[in-house]
Amino acid sequence: MKTFHIQPVGRTMQADIQDKIDNLNKPKGSLGRLEEIAMQVCLVQQTLSPSLAHPCHLLLGGDHGIEREGVSISPREVTWQQMVNFTRGGGGVNMFCRQHGFKLRIVDVGVDHDLSSVPGITDRKIARGTRNFLYKPAMTDQQFCRAISIGSDLVDECLSEGCRVLSIGEMGIANTSPSSIWMHLFGGIPLAECIGAGSGLADEGIRHKYDILMRAAQQSPRETTDILAYYGGFEMVAAIGAMLRAAEQRLLVLVDGFIMTACAIAAIRLHPAAQDYMLFAHQGDEAGHRRMLDIVGAKPLLSLGLRLGEGTGALCAFPIVDSAVRMMNEMNNFQSAKITKYF
Amino acid sequence: MKTFHIQPVGRTMQADIQDKIDNLNKPKGSLGRLEEIAMQVCLVQQTLSPSLAHPCHLLLGGDHGIEREGVSISPREVTWQQMVNFTRGGGGVNMFCRQHGFKLRIVDVGVDHDLSSVPGITDRKIARGTRNFLYKPAMTDQQFCRAISIGSDLVDECLSEGCRVLSIGEMGIANTSPSSIWMHLFGGIPLAECIGAGSGLADEGIRHKYDILMRAAQQSPRETTDILAYYGGFEMVAAIGAMLRAAEQRLLVLVDGFIMTACAIAAIRLHPAAQDYMLFAHQGDEAGHRRMLDIVGAKPLLSLGLRLGEGTGALCAFPIVDSAVRMMNEMNNFQSAKITKYF
Repeated sequence: MKTFHIQPVGRTMQADIQDKIDNLNKPKGSLGRLEEIAMQVCLVQQTLSPSLAHPCHLLLGGDHGIEREGVSISPREVTWQQMVNFTRGGGGVNMFCRQHGFKLRIVDVGVDHDLSSVPGITDRKIARGTRNFLYKPAMTDQQFCRAISIGSDLVDECLSEGCRVLSIGEMGIANTSPSSIWMHLFGGIPLAECIGAGSGLADEGIRHKYDILMRAAQQSPRETTDILAYYGGFEMVAAIGAMLRAAEQRLLVLVDGFIMTACAIAAIRLHPAAQDYMLFAHQGDEAGHRRMLDIVGAKPLLSLGLRLGEGTGALCAFPIVDSAVRMMNEMNNFQSAKITKYF
Repeated sequence: MKTFHIQPVGRTMQADIQDKIDNLNKPKGSLGRLEEIAMQVCLVQQTLSPSLAHPCHLLLGGDHGIEREGVSISPREVTWQQMVNFTRGGGGVNMFCRQHGFKLRIVDVGVDHDLSSVPGITDRKIARGTRNFLYKPAMTDQQFCRAISIGSDLVDECLSEGCRVLSIGEMGIANTSPSSIWMHLFGGIPLAECIGAGSGLADEGIRHKYDILMRAAQQSPRETTDILAYYGGFEMVAAIGAMLRAAEQRLLVLVDGFIMTACAIAAIRLHPAAQDYMLFAHQGDEAGHRRMLDIVGAKPLLSLGLRLGEGTGALCAFPIVDSAVRMMNEMNNFQSAKITKYF
């Protein structure tokens, strides 16, 4: 696997940043979470005047062998159908990207359908879906390394366009299943508490999903990278590669819901300092997402019950981050506003 | 007081709206709160294709006689200084209005300073601050009626410009005090649980505020309008007038934090159907705001610990409402997206 050199954010500017925040013309602390976000973005970018220029959204698609076990209410073909739909602008992710000015990159990392001739989809296909991890590792070590590199290279493309904030989403029917197993293995949380309805399973379906995943989890290897390769989706491992490269390059990353949080936890396990560059955007509706966020002590910005995936939760939280950055760049301080400082 | 004819939103379209939401290309219910917001906005506007065109923000300013009792950490002059600052674009409210495309109307309803020559401030001054409600009613009945009409007329001005969504904020040092008393009287909640730090009181200051407000609350009249006139600020009563006129005209209103929630509860007490037209945007940091929201069963969209006032919490939540409206207008349904319907 590609080596990443990730440094924690430097803290030498922290006092200066706090001083600027405290002198803006408002009661101290009165912009709440916005002030915390501003601090983080300033530290990530090592500046008193942060920027969210050229926001990019990576939409990574892949299919999953485990889908064959009936662990999702949605059939496999929905992955490629939605990927095509995204190129036409009619998906949830499209509407959020238009609303917030994100450039959308739709990337086939491992969809089980020939999408090579579809305009608007970047072809980085590793294979037509992973293998079924109930019986064997989802991917080979070579495939794992390739997925990491694909994610990393996509971030470099974004950076070359001046991107200062990245969000990542996924399209992959059945990918709550590997996410649940990672949560179980990385968080030490009983598997039953890691499994939810996905895109809409009823109780019986959830029990079946539990049985399948419980059997699969028995096979677990020990090493982090082996666990990632054994259960992961290509789109998920690419997301991990993207998160690690973003951290290495001091690029702010908005982390979406259940699946992307699982990827973030994996990235943090590989490189703890990567968390400094992540903003956890949304607490999704999937059972256990709150507990998953607790594994890394993350406080999500939004809790709107979204469970669509595609990175929609991350995109939905973008304006709040934008507000925090505007606070730093646009608000007067007490002196320039000619207001009695009242604290 | 001006008479308002407020009808509950009609429900005959509800099934058609739900049908449209359920056929968008996403798992049923997977956009969570956005789907609930979309339903409400569609019902308010009686359409399947809602609009948030020409958003307006009313920033209403007024001073409070009770400020003389030392119930706020901020001195009275901050009200007019901030009003002037808002005209120069450097306040929190300005930055949010620019970010989300709101037209900002800065209105002096009762600031204790001559602002008549300041460009950018609409002069609707009733008096230079209310009277001190520790000793006498804050305003006369005539002043109360005038404040209601001012708020109502401001909404008509917004409507004449094509406004489809209104948010309201306030600037008035000490206005958490009347808000706490209204919460106590209208919600039946012990006064001690209705009082918080305002813009930054320490424990001793909160105890003093409690003592003052407890004495003042003993004088309470019985009738709702009398309670509003006895304790209210001009900017707060104008906000109530604006909320009632908005409901009468089927205009969506974004309700801000502690003070605007107190005004919303007053408006709902006068006309229960007015609540159909309100979206509660933000749970503020002020102690008791959660309980105040519970009085009317409101679930706020955001909880970011803001306590700046000015309507910043309402504005901060606007993009989420915008997302809900875009969902209705921009997302494909399963048929047009050519996706297997999987539920």
